[in-house]
Amino acid sequence: MPATPYQYLSLALQFTNLTQPVTNMAVKSIYNWAGCAIGGYSLPPASVAYEALSSVLPHHSGNVSVLGSGAWMDIQTAALVNGIASHVDDYDDTHADTPIHPSRPVASALLAVAEWNFPVSGQDFLTAFVAGVEAECKLGVAVYPEYYDVGWHITSTTGSVGAAVAVGKLLGLSLEHLQHAISIAAVQVNGMHESFGTDTKPFHVGRAAQSGLLSALLAQNGYGGSLQGLEAERGWAHVVSTRENLTAEFSTLGETWELSKNTFKPFPCDRIIHAAIDGCVQIHDQAVHNRLDLGTIKNVTARTNPMVLFLTDNPEPRTSLDAKFSVYHAAAIALLFGQASPAQFTDEMVRNTTVVELRAKVHITADEGISEHEAFYVHIEHALGSIENPLSTQQLKDKFIEHAGSVIGKQRAEKAFRAFSQIANTSDVGSISRKFRK
Amino acid sequence: MPATPYQYLSLALQFTNLTQPVTNMAVKSIYNWAGCAIGGYSLPPASVAYEALSSVLPHHSGNVSVLGSGAWMDIQTAALVNGIASHVDDYDDTHADTPIHPSRPVASALLAVAEWNFPVSGQDFLTAFVAGVEAECKLGVAVYPEYYDVGWHITSTTGSVGAAVAVGKLLGLSLEHLQHAISIAAVQVNGMHESFGTDTKPFHVGRAAQSGLLSALLAQNGYGGSLQGLEAERGWAHVVSTRENLTAEFSTLGETWELSKNTFKPFPCDRIIHAAIDGCVQIHDQAVHNRLDLGTIKNVTARTNPMVLFLTDNPEPRTSLDAKFSVYHAAAIALLFGQASPAQFTDEMVRNTTVVELRAKVHITADEGISEHEAFYVHIEHALGSIENPLSTQQLKDKFIEHAGSVIGKQRAEKAFRAFSQIANTSDVGSISRKFRK
Repeated sequence: MPATPYQYLSLALQFTNLTQPVTNMAVKSIYNWAGCAIGGYSLPPASVAYEALSSVLPHHSGNVSVLGSGAWMDIQTAALVNGIASHVDDYDDTHADTPIHPSRPVASALLAVAEWNFPVSGQDFLTAFVAGVEAECKLGVAVYPEYYDVGWHITSTTGSVGAAVAVGKLLGLSLEHLQHAISIAAVQVNGMHESFGTDTKPFHVGRAAQSGLLSALLAQNGYGGSLQGLEAERGWAHVVSTRENLTAEFSTLGETWELSKNTFKPFPCDRIIHAAIDGCVQIHDQAVHNRLDLGTIKNVTARTNPMVLFLTDNPEPRTSLDAKFSVYHAAAIALLFGQASPAQFTDEMVRNTTVVELRAKVHITADEGISEHEAFYVHIEHALGSIENPLSTQQLKDKFIEHAGSVIGKQRAEKAFRAFSQIANTSDVGSISRKFRK
Repeated sequence: MPATPYQYLSLALQFTNLTQPVTNMAVKSIYNWAGCAIGGYSLPPASVAYEALSSVLPHHSGNVSVLGSGAWMDIQTAALVNGIASHVDDYDDTHADTPIHPSRPVASALLAVAEWNFPVSGQDFLTAFVAGVEAECKLGVAVYPEYYDVGWHITSTTGSVGAAVAVGKLLGLSLEHLQHAISIAAVQVNGMHESFGTDTKPFHVGRAAQSGLLSALLAQNGYGGSLQGLEAERGWAHVVSTRENLTAEFSTLGETWELSKNTFKPFPCDRIIHAAIDGCVQIHDQAVHNRLDLGTIKNVTARTNPMVLFLTDNPEPRTSLDAKFSVYHAAAIALLFGQASPAQFTDEMVRNTTVVELRAKVHITADEGISEHEAFYVHIEHALGSIENPLSTQQLKDKFIEHAGSVIGKQRAEKAFRAFSQIANTSDVGSISRKFRK
């Protein structure tokens, strides 16, 4: 990899370089992230992490908001907890060419900086956000799928670098300092598949946000590192992956915008089972239309891509987080309720007798001939929320209000949505969370 | 891996199980660590990290000492900075069967807990320390050398798990909570060879200490994770290494004590060049004895194991940290001064004209027939500080007093040595650092 990508990320990329579609997608990605972080605070991982860290630091010991909680903490704790909350519902954005949820680590780190070191203008925030997302997604495509298939959680493992680039850019680091920040972030590789279905999965994302932020802060203070942390023989790419294509992928910076391939999840669970849900919702709707009784279902048989079973073959989930990685739960609630919102993934719903009974009737077979985003209940070629069948702006807003509103109430959620969706025009991003404070 | 190793680490292992040699080695390892952490504060990485973190948190915002600085911080910051300081001089202890420096992450995390959550008895501290070291070294031997050779810094990448086990044990976590702590730590893989010679190398160790500590604190508060984070198909061992032998290695817990294979470095640089230094010191001493003029050296030619050049082939180091990974610098200062203490690895010494001139005359060739701890200047079969030729207790004390004394003065260093070497008999480990406070 030539020095050019580092120069591009640190200096060349400016707000004026962003195309309108890229800016629009950045804004949507940020408010979709914020809705998830606010709404996600209702599940245990975020609040448990907040309580654990509060036990070793004074409560309210900073000026950075822990979204959804009403609390304010130091920048590092807030980045960690907001990162956890933003990913706990698996209600993310997703890069279409990899399974990266790009905004999670980047926005979690950036908003913490904007509240701590204010004022940060919306334009600077968006530019830093785009730089971070481009860096992590270029890294991701350079090592995907080998890297993912071995078991790394690609969102968090590329996310620490994305967060370091974004924060470094916001702090105005020099080229060399940004290279140091990237290298410090690159040696912090957080996240493996074994955590999926546990509290540790969202922790990956929070820790990635915090790791990138810490790296940029250290580099800003003169802490040194390699100038080639990503591409060197014993640097990130070669150590973590059996294949890497950094030079080619990073050479497209500013030409191929990875952010333009971002998509948003309509359902709060792993994207790999979205097609199955989409199909079951359609079956539900047809059944309702034809006045069929869904209670008489004897058997649900479906064919899916083998990756669906690789990641979600859990017929007996016990908790909300488990259920987000159970294709059986997903099919059952979609058939029964015709929808899959956070309400269908609560601990109570996981134990609901009707759901448990229907779940036991679901049988899935793997079929190499079916792509990851298809399912053969009814044929779903492009699940809702895919790049070919994206959520509309109205659907994104509804998602935000319902999810964030479940934690802070509908009225404050409306205020929050308005503030985040107008981020491009604000002169102080750090003031946004004060606008919907209780 | 059966559940037994987790049970052994969490519950079965008690102070009374430790043999006298294991306890003695634990005490030496802890005071050798403390001397390095106090002495290491004089190099920039520790103080830069402290300043960077102080800028986002109130100064003196806790009750945990930043060794060598006189400052007190919160538990997480102190664990990070003490971990950095303890490794910055590369003056470590080293496990003879792997390149793991076992006490660095474990003691950095443990002392922070003992100061924060006091009183912790010396016996409990030592038991937790041994549990952490055994866990990280068993992990290390299970994946070494494949894992190391690909570029992971094995001290820090196993160290987060070692620190989690140690802190978890000190906090009295249940079996299940300790398994969670281990899994949260296992997904935080910090450290790659590309950082060697930069500030980021000691950062690996500090971050490992902090990651393990955070994992145990989260688990204590009920944060969940996998119950098989190390051995599962997509857990630590399989994701990070092409080979693993966890079941066999962990089955020897409590029978084969990894800590009994610990060694201490006589020279503040990578252990791979200790044989070269030892040989050059002997040449120096013979030359002095025979009244030869070392200024007339025209050429220094040596054969070493290929790993020496793999890790330390840097003929023109520019900084203190660079020089610790330069076999050329090491040979030059050992020939010139007949010793290799921190004073021979300062930035000034790296730029010293006589040293620079002699360095340029050193030529190294790789020879597969020579083991890692040999060198053919004069034949050094077992370098000083190896398991066959260990430092004496007096040499360890001298090392402590010289190194720590360079930062806190000889008198306080004597007090610190006394307190740490009597750790087994104290009822409050957290009070030790107050005993040598200014």
